[in-house]
Amino acid sequence: MKVLLVYAHPEAKSFNGSMRELAVATLSGAGHEVFVSDLYGLGFNAVAGPADVVTRKNEGVFNLGLEQMHAAGEGAFAPDIQVELDKLMAADLLLFQFPMWWFSMPAILKGWIDRVFAFGAAYDFGRTWDKGVFTGRRAMLSFTLSAPEAAFLPDGRNGDMERVLWPIHAGILALVGYSVLPPFISHGIPFVGEAAMHAELERFRARLLSIEGDEPLFFHPSADIRDYRLAPGVEPATPGQHRGTRKHLPGTISGLR
Amino acid sequence: MKVLLVYAHPEAKSFNGSMRELAVATLSGAGHEVFVSDLYGLGFNAVAGPADVVTRKNEGVFNLGLEQMHAAGEGAFAPDIQVELDKLMAADLLLFQFPMWWFSMPAILKGWIDRVFAFGAAYDFGRTWDKGVFTGRRAMLSFTLSAPEAAFLPDGRNGDMERVLWPIHAGILALVGYSVLPPFISHGIPFVGEAAMHAELERFRARLLSIEGDEPLFFHPSADIRDYRLAPGVEPATPGQHRGTRKHLPGTISGLR
Repeated sequence: MKVLLVYAHPEAKSFNGSMRELAVATLSGAGHEVFVSDLYGLGFNAVAGPADVVTRKNEGVFNLGLEQMHAAGEGAFAPDIQVELDKLMAADLLLFQFPMWWFSMPAILKGWIDRVFAFGAAYDFGRTWDKGVFTGRRAMLSFTLSAPEAAFLPDGRNGDMERVLWPIHAGILALVGYSVLPPFISHGIPFVGEAAMHAELERFRARLLSIEGDEPLFFHPSADIRDYRLAPGVEPATPGQHRGTRKHLPGTISGLR
Repeated sequence: MKVLLVYAHPEAKSFNGSMRELAVATLSGAGHEVFVSDLYGLGFNAVAGPADVVTRKNEGVFNLGLEQMHAAGEGAFAPDIQVELDKLMAADLLLFQFPMWWFSMPAILKGWIDRVFAFGAAYDFGRTWDKGVFTGRRAMLSFTLSAPEAAFLPDGRNGDMERVLWPIHAGILALVGYSVLPPFISHGIPFVGEAAMHAELERFRARLLSIEGDEPLFFHPSADIRDYRLAPGVEPATPGQHRGTRKHLPGTISGLR
């Protein structure tokens, strides 16, 4: 299969750098074709804006979604985006390798999403979730973090990791149609020492070699949804959805629409 | 009070731009001192890396946390970071105004966090959560999104908004000590028309005028935590923590540490 590895770490001589090298060697060695987007190495522009398109739909007011849609129709994405889109569209497996910063991805990787997952190209109205552009393809996060795993257990200080990952797993990957594989999480890397780091690399190698057989995470299919919500009788079965009491927000519809 | 408004939108003539102008006028009019970090206007560098510091602890290998800690001790942050740190340290209220992209903030705003919330300056070991640098200060998100509110209800297609916000509310703001105020969320803005947009601006104005009396969201205090987890007998009371069954991840500690 074709693999796109999007790698976001400022230092090649880091554990993330070793993970990237290992992924390329392991997947290539298994006969896959591996493309790497080394975002720091590329000096990738992280900031979505007017530079994303070479012709404008509206010269007076910049609306990102409208300009992305226009560029998708005209083939008018900036070259740095088009290169990434071409790799993305070719890839059967999308892998992210990054350090978790602030319960999320580094800005340079978020910027890659903001700019490359463009409206009209990676999704549009009607082409989302299980009707998305990338249905039938697989995606996986691999990331490091300094916190111990205990802090991200369901009753952990930092909250349940599967809820922390919901905005990425659901809001980025599943939303555009990917089958999302369970993440590969490397905890406490700054503190574990050489032997444990080596063991972690071996654990990653084994995971990569079995990745084609991994069972994806569950997200509710469109058939479960009615008027933007789970249909009556559908039991919530993801980390993001529930029918319990809210803790931080009012429970009723209060906004504009 | 002193207010820092961090604003992240590529187009001044946008609804977000109107929200920014309204916030400045309303809060200034109420006697507060308002500072604005217009990240697109500044051309703010979103990418944490070697350019963040003017002297290095380790010239050979770049470790972001270690270099931030070193720069905090030496007063050696890059000027663009130091300017933001000075505003941040002076502010009693931190306001973010942004469009929600991919269930999160635009990369330029995430990059502001990655770079300005520096280890050694905005937090360090022992100075987090209710012992954090920013305890006694308040923070609030204000953001727009195109999706209807129904999609982010507890059983919504996109998952419960309070879970979507957990990585930002908990993992960024509460983690460094802020009292996090309920967010101001403007739904469906591209579709509602002029009258509803005007009404939404008025709703924001009223909210800003009462912001000093707002009750913050609840996060478990350090007294509730034992070994990185809620102590036995402490009932989980946030959107991030629970003692139920996981849906996406294995339930037991499986990583390195």
